[in-house]
Amino acid sequence: VSARLRQAAAAVDEARLWNRHVEMARHGARDDGGVNRQALSPEDAAARRLLVSWATEAGFACATDPIGNLFVRREGRELGAAPVLSGSHLDSQPAGGRFDGVYGVLAGLEALQAIDEAELATRRPIEVVAWCNEEGSRFAPGAMGSAAFAGAQPLSTLLDIRDREGTRVEDALAATLAAGPPLRQRPLGFPLAAYVEAHIEQGPVLEAEGRTVGVVTAIQGARWFAVEVHGSAAHAGTTPLRSRRDALRSAVSLVTRLEEAMDDPTDTLRFTVGRFEVSPNSPNTVPERVAFSIDLRHPDPRVLDERARAVAALCRASRQPCEVEVREVLDLPPVQFDETIVELIERSAATLGLPNMRLPSGAFHDAMHLARLCPAGMVFIPCAGGVSHSPRESARSSDLAAGARVLGQVLFELAR
Amino acid sequence: VSARLRQAAAAVDEARLWNRHVEMARHGARDDGGVNRQALSPEDAAARRLLVSWATEAGFACATDPIGNLFVRREGRELGAAPVLSGSHLDSQPAGGRFDGVYGVLAGLEALQAIDEAELATRRPIEVVAWCNEEGSRFAPGAMGSAAFAGAQPLSTLLDIRDREGTRVEDALAATLAAGPPLRQRPLGFPLAAYVEAHIEQGPVLEAEGRTVGVVTAIQGARWFAVEVHGSAAHAGTTPLRSRRDALRSAVSLVTRLEEAMDDPTDTLRFTVGRFEVSPNSPNTVPERVAFSIDLRHPDPRVLDERARAVAALCRASRQPCEVEVREVLDLPPVQFDETIVELIERSAATLGLPNMRLPSGAFHDAMHLARLCPAGMVFIPCAGGVSHSPRESARSSDLAAGARVLGQVLFELAR
Repeated sequence: VSARLRQAAAAVDEARLWNRHVEMARHGARDDGGVNRQALSPEDAAARRLLVSWATEAGFACATDPIGNLFVRREGRELGAAPVLSGSHLDSQPAGGRFDGVYGVLAGLEALQAIDEAELATRRPIEVVAWCNEEGSRFAPGAMGSAAFAGAQPLSTLLDIRDREGTRVEDALAATLAAGPPLRQRPLGFPLAAYVEAHIEQGPVLEAEGRTVGVVTAIQGARWFAVEVHGSAAHAGTTPLRSRRDALRSAVSLVTRLEEAMDDPTDTLRFTVGRFEVSPNSPNTVPERVAFSIDLRHPDPRVLDERARAVAALCRASRQPCEVEVREVLDLPPVQFDETIVELIERSAATLGLPNMRLPSGAFHDAMHLARLCPAGMVFIPCAGGVSHSPRESARSSDLAAGARVLGQVLFELAR
Repeated sequence: VSARLRQAAAAVDEARLWNRHVEMARHGARDDGGVNRQALSPEDAAARRLLVSWATEAGFACATDPIGNLFVRREGRELGAAPVLSGSHLDSQPAGGRFDGVYGVLAGLEALQAIDEAELATRRPIEVVAWCNEEGSRFAPGAMGSAAFAGAQPLSTLLDIRDREGTRVEDALAATLAAGPPLRQRPLGFPLAAYVEAHIEQGPVLEAEGRTVGVVTAIQGARWFAVEVHGSAAHAGTTPLRSRRDALRSAVSLVTRLEEAMDDPTDTLRFTVGRFEVSPNSPNTVPERVAFSIDLRHPDPRVLDERARAVAALCRASRQPCEVEVREVLDLPPVQFDETIVELIERSAATLGLPNMRLPSGAFHDAMHLARLCPAGMVFIPCAGGVSHSPRESARSSDLAAGARVLGQVLFELAR
């Protein structure tokens, strides 16, 4: 077995893996070197076509499902055996980088191709997946494809979600699929033997600790809120401040009180207002409406619950002179990964001589939904400065390859 | 004198004044009851023809000037005496109402006709003017006709301004004049004895205070700033708060400090953040950049200067952990109206038994340019809810007439 594991790792082609990242980054390329490839956009469709072309060239079959997840399959020896699955996502933030998500898909494909080129037969099929709309920046919430696959949210609800222009997921998905080659349709949530996702860390820990591989033990929980503040538009020159119902003034005051209430001396809680939109957004008109987002995360489910209740209560308490509406749009409890998979990843990194460490994930990933369906785990590699969701996101070719080697061994071990 | 003043006021015909507002509102009528009559459009040309027809019918002479201001004249006894002028504008916002501007022109005409029908002779001529393009929504900037008349901007520059379709002011003006009867041409900036403009308040003060007449003391000055806050984008889940440079957090804190510093117990200062834009504006990305506007207004130039300096200083002082840039983009000093005219308006309202109060104008008006040429003042009447620049703009017939009565007395007093 260990000889075959070495063969799988050795067949990983660092140059091919790097070049595929470069080619993928052309779809949605920004002038600043980053990537804007939002879910179900023409750029996303182009990235999907590229993945299908690489997979087809390598002799693998492709398929999709009702939420637009994209699967690449290498058959196993045993008819009907549940596959071992690996992957991540191809969509990016509006100002995103070249590795977040893409790495997990391309590392999965590289591992699959390495196992294939090393001519290693497995009992179970191995599949690579590109989950639809992980980022949620165009269609909120994110991790939509894996949520639908795991039955965490009803398909019909997700298909009916609209972007800011009013386009529905269902219509954007139909356009995306129409822009690519015909694909076999599969049902959501077919049986899986295991799921392993590779990803850049998106945090500063591995780089700071000098480790090549992060063995991910858990994903912290997240709660998202959409807040709307409703005031009245008025002339900025003629309307005395006392008779205004200034939605921006109320929103700014509410955000300030939320920041104070979410203070955490241990710096473990993550509280972020990332989206903040004003209308009519004109310099000489008092704002009528502000819509802002709250992203709250913590690894401890009890702390997370308590803070989420405080957020909702604070929003509901601030009624004067504007009306405040708060809706919870995402509730993802913390996820613990399967200890067998965690140990398998740790052992693989060790046999390859790669410095590694256990750590929880600060970001959420599609793996959190998959952990409900089967034993699951994640492999992290370092990214420069811990920066992601930014055009400055960067990772080293040798680290990308090291992660793919660990992944190749783990997938082979789980499938053989 | 007081008997003649009473006669001038008594001759004001409330029904005629109201009906003329209704007739004017047909030109550019919107389905929602509002008016879209932008400067030098066919609708504006139709409104001008209607004004000329009313003036001609009443026996007054009409004239125009090189920027298309439209004058209606009743002669005085003394040959060559500088006229007393009153008026406002006929053009509207794209989604405007039936009173903003139109009222000042029709109240002027009504006052002129009342003086004439009361058979009151005056030493000086009295004229009514419809200034060209006050709104500036088609051809920017606004108050174009009065600016050209007062020499605030060169005629050739203004004639060369284009609308979004590329049409020049000069060509639109030629078409507008060609669509009406031939008019005598006069030079820009002829000598004036005084200027008094009637207008709806466009603010809520008169209605809230239960006053029929606003005695306008000044047009407040305005200072506009563009502020940019530069931080670093980062992942909302993985980046500890202590290592963030969150542009939204810094901007919210800066706006809060500005609001505190701009607090005014007299509620005279107008401080508005109307535009506020976040990038990348994604729920799970720490904001990298916020751009917001500041609109600051006050009638006292010293207070305005002092507060504007404080705004700039506060922005420049807040450097950690984000960088703040502040640029001043507009500086319009306050205009003080002539105390003689202010007192004349106040006394006229009092003798008519009309509840009145002194107040500064929050919005800009043609009178700000005229105040450079001669003693000037303004008469405000209430508008419902202080709403203007909206199809919901509304004013009461009895208030329109009350303002015209005050105007008739003041014009007679200034001209006799």
